[in-house]
Amino acid sequence: MTQTTRPSIPGYTLGTPEVATSPITDAEFALLKQTVLLGDDDVRYLRMAGEVLSDQIEAILDVWYGFVGSNAHLVHYFSGADGKPDARYLGAVRQRFAQWIRDTCAANYDRAWLDYQHEIGLRHTSAKKNRTDGLVSPAPHIHLRYLIAFIVPITATIKPFLSKKGHSAADVDGMYTAWFKAVTLQITLWSEPYVAPSAF
Amino acid sequence: MTQTTRPSIPGYTLGTPEVATSPITDAEFALLKQTVLLGDDDVRYLRMAGEVLSDQIEAILDVWYGFVGSNAHLVHYFSGADGKPDARYLGAVRQRFAQWIRDTCAANYDRAWLDYQHEIGLRHTSAKKNRTDGLVSPAPHIHLRYLIAFIVPITATIKPFLSKKGHSAADVDGMYTAWFKAVTLQITLWSEPYVAPSAF
Ligand code: HEM
Ligand code: HEM
Repeated sequence: MTQTTRPSIPGYTLGTPEVATSPITDAEFALLKQTVLLGDDDVRYLRMAGEVLSDQIEAILDVWYGFVGSNAHLVHYFSGADGKPDARYLGAVRQRFAQWIRDTCAANYDRAWLDYQHEIGLRHTSAKKNRTDGLVSPAPHIHLRYLIAFIVPITATIKPFLSKKGHSAADVDGMYTAWFKAVTLQITLWSEPYVAPSAF
Repeated sequence: MTQTTRPSIPGYTLGTPEVATSPITDAEFALLKQTVLLGDDDVRYLRMAGEVLSDQIEAILDVWYGFVGSNAHLVHYFSGADGKPDARYLGAVRQRFAQWIRDTCAANYDRAWLDYQHEIGLRHTSAKKNRTDGLVSPAPHIHLRYLIAFIVPITATIKPFLSKKGHSAADVDGMYTAWFKAVTLQITLWSEPYVAPSAF
């Protein structure tokens, strides 16, 4: 992930001093990667996925936003002061979400990346949700239940997109498994601010 | 899941009055199932997986226990008073784990099932870990990070076993996806006692 591939997206602060600091040590992070079985092959497959997905990002986001938008219990988290979905908020987050797909495929798992995982986690909790976009919202945080449950839609829905560029079944499987590991690893990191330090 | 398929396993208390009561309402549970995209097709595929896996359970547990046993940071949670892995504890949990595979494939998602999910969640926290087997352990709870991260090994390692009975690629995929949803749904439920009620 090189500096030059990071476009200027409102509120996207990876690598800047505004970002929170991850409490995870290198040793702890190594054990986490080991636990989700993330190895060099997976990193190679993530890079392959990055190429495969690069021109499909808006279509992927249409699927994810379609799912959120058609579920009142989910779109609730995007509501503004009037209790209705806030289009500006949805749009701003969507741009950062697009970048997240690229970052997930390009991740080098360095400190800047780890710190930004902590930042994204906080942005799902009452510590930082709504702040980046200056929103007044009746939803102060994303409930942990949906954060974890979302591993499924964010993983399962990616497969058709991975299959669209004529790769072998083995390569599609490899990319899919690598994506699954990468998403689960990130949700694990994002869960940290939800619990007492001793329980994480 | 009929009463008759439940063998007598030490500490396995599904459907008994000793089990904790799930705080999840029916409406909340319906939304969770919707969020992990769990539908009737998945339930049918879980039943198919139950047949496919029924005579492979010890082999599956060998893989999972092999993974835990070869990782000091994981086997630690099975240590007894002397700080070493407790063979009696490992063996007792293994029997309940075998039953869990059967239960996951046979789940009808009723109240008894939901209550037992809450019970299993508690058995991973300091509220109930070590109690069932009367253990004195230096590990008072499973850290949430590994509970979530384990979605990967518990899911990814099942695929070869699902492929072993000559089912079509489409059926293996269907069983695999249903298993993924079922595991993620359960880990979501198990995370409840880790956080403040307002954050779950
Ligand atoms: C696998 C689970 C999830 C993934 C991968 C994910 C991904 C993301 C990403 C990449 C961002 C933008 C981060 C940034 O600011 O750079 C974000 C923000 C956000 N997500 Fe999620 N998300 C997940 C679960 C959820 C769920 C379940 C909801 C609830 C519907 C949700 C609602 C939001 C909202 C409202 C924001 C904006 C937060 C803010 O005010 O800054 N997310 N998410
Ligand atoms: C996907 C994640 C996991 C699944 C599906 C799972 C499954 C289970 C099951 C079915 C049981 C027995 C429940 C019963 O008493 O009927 C159990 C207990 C246990 N698990 Fe997990 N587990 C997971 C994560 C972990 C992790 C990461 C560890 C740490 C290595 C762990 C360590 C234990 C221990 C020590 C017990 C015994 C708890 C007690 O004292 O009662 N589990 N698990």
